[in-house]
Amino acid sequence: MRAVDIIQKKRDKEILTKEEINFLLEEYLEGNTPDYQMSSFLMAVYFNGMTTEELKYFTEKMIYSGDTIDFPGTHKFLVDKHSTGGVGDKTTIALAPIFGALGMGTAKLSGKGLGHTGGTIDKFESIEGFKFSRTKEELIKLVNETGTGIMGYSDKIVPLDKKLYSLRDVTATVPSIPLIASSIMGKKLAVHADAIILDVKVGSGAFMKNIDEARELAETMYELGKAFDRNIVCFLTNMDQPLGEAVGNSLEMIEAIETLKGNGPEDFTDLIYTLASQALVMKGDTADLESGKQKVRKVIENGQALDMLRKFIKGSGGNPSVCDDYSLLPKAKEKDVFRATKDGYIEHLNAELIGRAAMMLGAGRATKDDIIDHSVGIIMCSKVGDKLEKGAAILEIFHNGNLRDEVLETLAEAVVISEEKIDKQEIILEIIGG
Amino acid sequence: MRAVDIIQKKRDKEILTKEEINFLLEEYLEGNTPDYQMSSFLMAVYFNGMTTEELKYFTEKMIYSGDTIDFPGTHKFLVDKHSTGGVGDKTTIALAPIFGALGMGTAKLSGKGLGHTGGTIDKFESIEGFKFSRTKEELIKLVNETGTGIMGYSDKIVPLDKKLYSLRDVTATVPSIPLIASSIMGKKLAVHADAIILDVKVGSGAFMKNIDEARELAETMYELGKAFDRNIVCFLTNMDQPLGEAVGNSLEMIEAIETLKGNGPEDFTDLIYTLASQALVMKGDTADLESGKQKVRKVIENGQALDMLRKFIKGSGGNPSVCDDYSLLPKAKEKDVFRATKDGYIEHLNAELIGRAAMMLGAGRATKDDIIDHSVGIIMCSKVGDKLEKGAAILEIFHNGNLRDEVLETLAEAVVISEEKIDKQEIILEIIGG
Repeated sequence: MRAVDIIQKKRDKEILTKEEINFLLEEYLEGNTPDYQMSSFLMAVYFNGMTTEELKYFTEKMIYSGDTIDFPGTHKFLVDKHSTGGVGDKTTIALAPIFGALGMGTAKLSGKGLGHTGGTIDKFESIEGFKFSRTKEELIKLVNETGTGIMGYSDKIVPLDKKLYSLRDVTATVPSIPLIASSIMGKKLAVHADAIILDVKVGSGAFMKNIDEARELAETMYELGKAFDRNIVCFLTNMDQPLGEAVGNSLEMIEAIETLKGNGPEDFTDLIYTLASQALVMKGDTADLESGKQKVRKVIENGQALDMLRKFIKGSGGNPSVCDDYSLLPKAKEKDVFRATKDGYIEHLNAELIGRAAMMLGAGRATKDDIIDHSVGIIMCSKVGDKLEKGAAILEIFHNGNLRDEVLETLAEAVVISEEKIDKQEIILEIIGG
Repeated sequence: MRAVDIIQKKRDKEILTKEEINFLLEEYLEGNTPDYQMSSFLMAVYFNGMTTEELKYFTEKMIYSGDTIDFPGTHKFLVDKHSTGGVGDKTTIALAPIFGALGMGTAKLSGKGLGHTGGTIDKFESIEGFKFSRTKEELIKLVNETGTGIMGYSDKIVPLDKKLYSLRDVTATVPSIPLIASSIMGKKLAVHADAIILDVKVGSGAFMKNIDEARELAETMYELGKAFDRNIVCFLTNMDQPLGEAVGNSLEMIEAIETLKGNGPEDFTDLIYTLASQALVMKGDTADLESGKQKVRKVIENGQALDMLRKFIKGSGGNPSVCDDYSLLPKAKEKDVFRATKDGYIEHLNAELIGRAAMMLGAGRATKDDIIDHSVGIIMCSKVGDKLEKGAAILEIFHNGNLRDEVLETLAEAVVISEEKIDKQEIILEIIGG
């Protein structure tokens, strides 16, 4: 068997056998198949896709390229809720404690942010002293006590994905549905959660800019989950404008805490109620999303969810008083306000541009090695569909004296005001397999 | 400028600028753009092609990636006749002396054979002591005296093509019309010939298996030649059965010499008369192919063409008596005959399979480092359309005791006999720009 023949088959849209896929990926992982063969294979996949069977074998090799993770000693129903990434996405911070309060647990790998999108790890690291679990024992203790088990990605888990992703990143082969699906699902399937809830973001701030592409990705991942006998549901949710009102690490921490106090923005609250309720449905604790939401409301109103967050922060080396005293979080020195230039309705708050502006302030990384500033960010005073008058505040910009023209120009491009009435945007667009 | 963005543009079928193509190729040649980026670019080109402008810039970088070759001190009209390669293609051996006898010259790079196709260099090296010119002075002296100036490929000429071709070979990106065209034309345009005559082979033994692909390649190369203001004509010629009757180095040498004596096979004679006449038309010495052929006939009949070959062989260190005494050439020890299994007409003599059988005998190389046996090969006693009776000789197999079953099986597959009458095949299929 030769790599060049396998590339040629894919190029000519012939179907690869399990043996061929295994050969290609094993030899690649061992360094016998060079990057230049793999990258031409990946470009051929970009053009010709993969069949369901091919993708299953491809993903199987991903999963077993490294360690798989289970949680012995945890008897909770473990959920892996994963978002494809966006702007202002602090979902895990609020959702994991809710799962905990509802007697379930979170079991997932989490990453750092890059480019205009943020990462859960960065947001938690706004809290002084906060460190994710270093050992499996610590992690299981935390899952049992707080319901939250989040690990950073490691080189030992799905190493093939890391190797392939680095190559795709520099060879223009990232935006391929089967490759994205196998990359995400490889990491989900390597973790033994009882339920997988995928939140596929759609819109300007998401990787998938339009609903058709997003649906194709979601359906592909759903089928992959089913092929591996997993309990899986996929959501398509709006990322055309940022999620909630806060973008930036400390600011998002505060918004997530406020949401656990019942004071969250409408879209974000709606999202976490729905996702938490979906987990209850998948566990079999409740019949439908509406009845599940009642249970979610209860653990928010009685403070149990917030208490789980306090315990998780404490168990991770942070000061839980941060939940009551936001001055313990890093705070930007200056605030500027971006105002409406005319009367009207907000038509667009382009999430990618707002995310990029926040990155330029220091909230995110342009390259992997950048150091981020947890204090800076942007608060949206209005969202799409809101009516406002000329001069009204649309955005508050929290910075440390580095508000360059470039940032203001990016934001000016991000905000579009219409004279005609604009509808508010729904947060949940579609549910697949729910 | 980044390579990944250029790959992405090509992937998305956007048109690349001259600056982008120059950047990509210069950085690749300098080793700053790695093979894995170039191979994904090449696969994107495989799928999305190149515009005429893109291909011009791409080829321009090829040409000037190394030395270009001119022939100062030669006042002859220099022709670069190039074949895309096939089985039994000894055209240059007979054509170059005819050009010489007609007062023109050959100026071309020539290669060694690989796989089922033979190379001109190998055929000349059947002659003991024969060496191609090592210095430019030697070469120019030979061109002036014999009209034949053939050089082997060197790393200094179009080095980018060598680097790209090695990569394409292992990444399934060889069969792309623009990439093939730029590879061939880069080498043609780096040599300052007055006329370029391309012989694009079509059929089982050729790189291009069907006439539509071959025509597309020929038209692409013709346009490229015109874009660089060259005097160019492209022929599409039959390579569905081997050219002439001989396949194998010594055997082809003999056939080329016999053709210069006026005793050549019909198809091969027709081809060299037409190509030589085309050169006269391009030089402006004659009005059309028919009148040119009269001039060709004359230098064959009066022995001037053969004399030019004698001089070229002598000037290259070989014994010119080889033209009169074939026993000076390596001769295989054994001969077996492949006979008709039934009455009928020859429908196929699959050139690729016959070429592969000859390679297995030792006439060609399976890999670049194989050493070839100049004595072995195959003679076709009949060609497509010939009528024969059961038991009649179709092929004579010249070997040195290594006639394995595999060779006979390959030949049995190559020869198809029909009970119905089959037309003879035309050698010249189309002429583009003539």
